[in-house]
Amino acid sequence: MAPRRGSLLTSRPVKRTFPTAQDAETAFYDALEKGDLEAMMEVWAEDEEVVCVHPGGPRLAGYEQVRESWARIFQSGQRLKVHLSHHAVLSGMMLAVHSLHENITVGGESKPRPPVVTTNVYSRTATGWRMLAHHASPAPQAPARPAGDGPKVLH
Amino acid sequence: MAPRRGSLLTSRPVKRTFPTAQDAETAFYDALEKGDLEAMMEVWAEDEEVVCVHPGGPRLAGYEQVRESWARIFQSGQRLKVHLSHHAVLSGMMLAVHSLHENITVGGESKPRPPVVTTNVYSRTATGWRMLAHHASPAPQAPARPAGDGPKVLH
Repeated sequence: MAPRRGSLLTSRPVKRTFPTAQDAETAFYDALEKGDLEAMMEVWAEDEEVVCVHPGGPRLAGYEQVRESWARIFQSGQRLKVHLSHHAVLSGMMLAVHSLHENITVGGESKPRPPVVTTNVYSRTATGWRMLAHHASPAPQAPARPAGDGPKVLH
Repeated sequence: MAPRRGSLLTSRPVKRTFPTAQDAETAFYDALEKGDLEAMMEVWAEDEEVVCVHPGGPRLAGYEQVRESWARIFQSGQRLKVHLSHHAVLSGMMLAVHSLHENITVGGESKPRPPVVTTNVYSRTATGWRMLAHHASPAPQAPARPAGDGPKVLH
């Protein structure tokens, strides 16, 4: 491994770069499974307006607020196994939107928890692909059906 | 207003174009308030992988599935008034991510329903800015707080 050197702007070591949005996504879920905060935050763009919504949680905005939330989550030491499904991928030269289901099994449990529907947004930056937004919310329990047949929602 | 002409590719009239992502967003919520399906679908990119998650609903993928869901929602004839708050905006040359709260008052009701946290993703296309993704989910009732203090979530 090449020696890591300090950035001129911050005291943090140079971050890994991700040649594709899929590389960034793989690193994101790898960091989530390992509970590795530094690896998780390498995936995110260092921007004051990155946004993160954990399932049922408030909207978090900005790199520092997002980092703090992952630090709290990883503090529990709970190990997670993440199986992804239901991929729908939109990709362009500069951006990628990955929609998917996260099926998460908590360490010590035999079955995955109810699925989480997730939208991940990535952008190609000067330093490779980075995550701009992660919005996760509980998926409905029933199989996918046309909107309007299920519980009444505003839209 | 200039005469509208048929597209060479579809029998639909030429769509409005939106010079900025904010113009597309304004048109989106205007169409939502008016229950105007054609105006709503002008905002969306015609792509097989556009994605839409209504609050508590399944992930919908593709222009036709998204159109069908809005058609069902607008069929009710329910009029909505939408007040937006909590904006966080990320914008680049080719993409924009708008995070916000939708505070929706249903016609005949005096108070807004509980807020919805929303991520809207737009891209600059050959025909102006279009929506690629809309992910809406119920916002927590309590004021925003660091993740981990609230109900236990996986991440």
